[in-house]
Amino acid sequence: MQTRILERLRDEGPLSRVQLADLLGVSRTTIAAEVARLSELGLAQEVGQAASRGGRRSTLVDLADDIRFVGVSIGATGMSVGVTDGRVAVLKTRTIPCDITQGPEPVLALALKEARALLDELGIERPMGAGIAVPGPVDFHRGVPVSPPIMPGWDGYPVRDALARELGAPAVLDNDVNAMALGEQHAGVARNARDFLFVKIGTGIGCGIVVDGELYRGVDGCAGDIGHIRVEEFGPTCACGNTGCLEAFAGGSALARDATAAARAGRSPALAALLEERGELTAADISLAVAQGDAQAVQLIRDAGRRTGQVLASLVSFFNPGLIVIGGRVTGLGHALLAEIRGVTYRRSLPLATGNLPIVLSELGDESGVIGAARLISSSVYAPLRDRS
Amino acid sequence: MQTRILERLRDEGPLSRVQLADLLGVSRTTIAAEVARLSELGLAQEVGQAASRGGRRSTLVDLADDIRFVGVSIGATGMSVGVTDGRVAVLKTRTIPCDITQGPEPVLALALKEARALLDELGIERPMGAGIAVPGPVDFHRGVPVSPPIMPGWDGYPVRDALARELGAPAVLDNDVNAMALGEQHAGVARNARDFLFVKIGTGIGCGIVVDGELYRGVDGCAGDIGHIRVEEFGPTCACGNTGCLEAFAGGSALARDATAAARAGRSPALAALLEERGELTAADISLAVAQGDAQAVQLIRDAGRRTGQVLASLVSFFNPGLIVIGGRVTGLGHALLAEIRGVTYRRSLPLATGNLPIVLSELGDESGVIGAARLISSSVYAPLRDRS
Repeated sequence: MQTRILERLRDEGPLSRVQLADLLGVSRTTIAAEVARLSELGLAQEVGQAASRGGRRSTLVDLADDIRFVGVSIGATGMSVGVTDGRVAVLKTRTIPCDITQGPEPVLALALKEARALLDELGIERPMGAGIAVPGPVDFHRGVPVSPPIMPGWDGYPVRDALARELGAPAVLDNDVNAMALGEQHAGVARNARDFLFVKIGTGIGCGIVVDGELYRGVDGCAGDIGHIRVEEFGPTCACGNTGCLEAFAGGSALARDATAAARAGRSPALAALLEERGELTAADISLAVAQGDAQAVQLIRDAGRRTGQVLASLVSFFNPGLIVIGGRVTGLGHALLAEIRGVTYRRSLPLATGNLPIVLSELGDESGVIGAARLISSSVYAPLRDRS
Repeated sequence: MQTRILERLRDEGPLSRVQLADLLGVSRTTIAAEVARLSELGLAQEVGQAASRGGRRSTLVDLADDIRFVGVSIGATGMSVGVTDGRVAVLKTRTIPCDITQGPEPVLALALKEARALLDELGIERPMGAGIAVPGPVDFHRGVPVSPPIMPGWDGYPVRDALARELGAPAVLDNDVNAMALGEQHAGVARNARDFLFVKIGTGIGCGIVVDGELYRGVDGCAGDIGHIRVEEFGPTCACGNTGCLEAFAGGSALARDATAAARAGRSPALAALLEERGELTAADISLAVAQGDAQAVQLIRDAGRRTGQVLASLVSFFNPGLIVIGGRVTGLGHALLAEIRGVTYRRSLPLATGNLPIVLSELGDESGVIGAARLISSSVYAPLRDRS
């Protein structure tokens, strides 16, 4: 009961005792007693009288003002750190470059430094909890990464416990795409979706799966690992060691590799000029070349979109989602990529499954992972009370 | 509460009042009162004293003896009809040929005739409900097929309501693979699986998806339609109108087509002899040719297995299931097919997702659909009581 009250207040905002009693199907007396206990725990508070609904005025209940969560979302080449309130609304957030291949200790030290700086700026001594997301498979229950292909040195490292110890608060570790999917559900375009996919196209490619409003992690916690679906019999070698994986064709590293090859081979004047100027190319440079009308750059985006669309079409036939949200750095390549992904996905899936299927870009950008990570720990902080309800 | 009691008795067999009280977390008095009401409804009964567990002997409760459900599972070329008891154990079942392309009226008339014959043999006047499954997409809530590619004439036909009216009992309609997945969960190899896939390879190819013990149908009810995942850019035209679908390569019709072509082209002496003898070939004839050591027949099975394995590998990376059960008529092709499917699936999926992933053949055969369809209606018959609990 207490958990259900807290989750309602988190997701819907302040509610009167009468509303809570109606929503949860219990008496106002029960609500009053539960809210009193939550106040003692420092989790909820009464905040005056609700506007009258005709009858007697009812006391308005809200989450405690001073609940703060830390959300950390680590990608291959950058991390976002943020602090939220009890409703998982972002108070402050920051995105900085970082190289995940440096290993867990320096990367986590950087994340902690940023988190502490944000907490200081907000005048907070200790958060109520922290969520952290990394770009690889995770054993959610043990709080450790498991054989993550693009995270050398992280396999089995106790990320969750290290973070909890340093911050002096409970922590939770998940895969980045799972956190991003939750972020989209909490505050993004997936707010009203029960069954949807969040597809991240960054250095790697992965997918968060939400079934009936809940994250689906698979039996080993590696559901959604679509970057390693094979799209060609042969093809470039992937970070995972196999060949022909989607990620090895359409991920950010693959695009940077192909852009560099096109520049060096003289197939793309625009990319060649950028390479000359900078010494190396990233996926983002392709969109600069596209803006200059470079045909080869357009082709690179089309190829990546087509192969991503092929995989999404298979997933649509299998999963029949109500929404697909596309996010991650490569979406900076913009609408040319989205158009190609949509075209292939709509054309190749069963009409029944695509009739009402929106495929949209994330509007939260870097914040989705921060919000999702903070939301994960909010559920954990609010949920230990579940047993007593 | 009443529903939970009935479902426990269905899935676990007779239980004492004490056991029920423990399992459901309520008092024995509550259980006694609920069981009394269920007895009045003709759904449960007391069946004497349970063996003592040291303390006072407790009354044993069971489902009513005379609960009977009808399960009908219609495939493209045959149907299975059965009658079960309240625990969804099959009392009698029968499988007969039928051609689904004849349209709903003759096919349903045949199903009703078989069901009535079985009920007569068992001395039953009226079942408590009937479940029916068809090989195509279904609007579960409306009880009608929706644009089913291999079922001409069935689109929008009120299958559920026609069956309910004729049998004078509530009915439910679902997709055949969903019913088969439930059958495997209730009485087959998936009894202990929470997240698993049931893959049917018959005339068509489809997949039932179970998430956390419950069927996942997708937002439009067409989840699991993996037969129309495109495995080649070009390829034979599929019944759905597209080209390159898995089903157009590896379904029963496709195998029969390729076997016939091999026979006519002189590539397979064994298949040519069978074609000469019978005038036409089915997928099952391929296994006869394999038994004679026919190289071309072996190749046909390998090709079908390889393409099926490619699709399953993608689904394993996406869904990370705990078990894959393979069923359907084409599994009559036996272990050569299974070996190829396993080989490709294990080789192409992420190691983390296949470490503990059994891929096994169904042991229920034709009964899985009958059991699943009956189980679906059992849930429906036991569940309307849920509101009162």
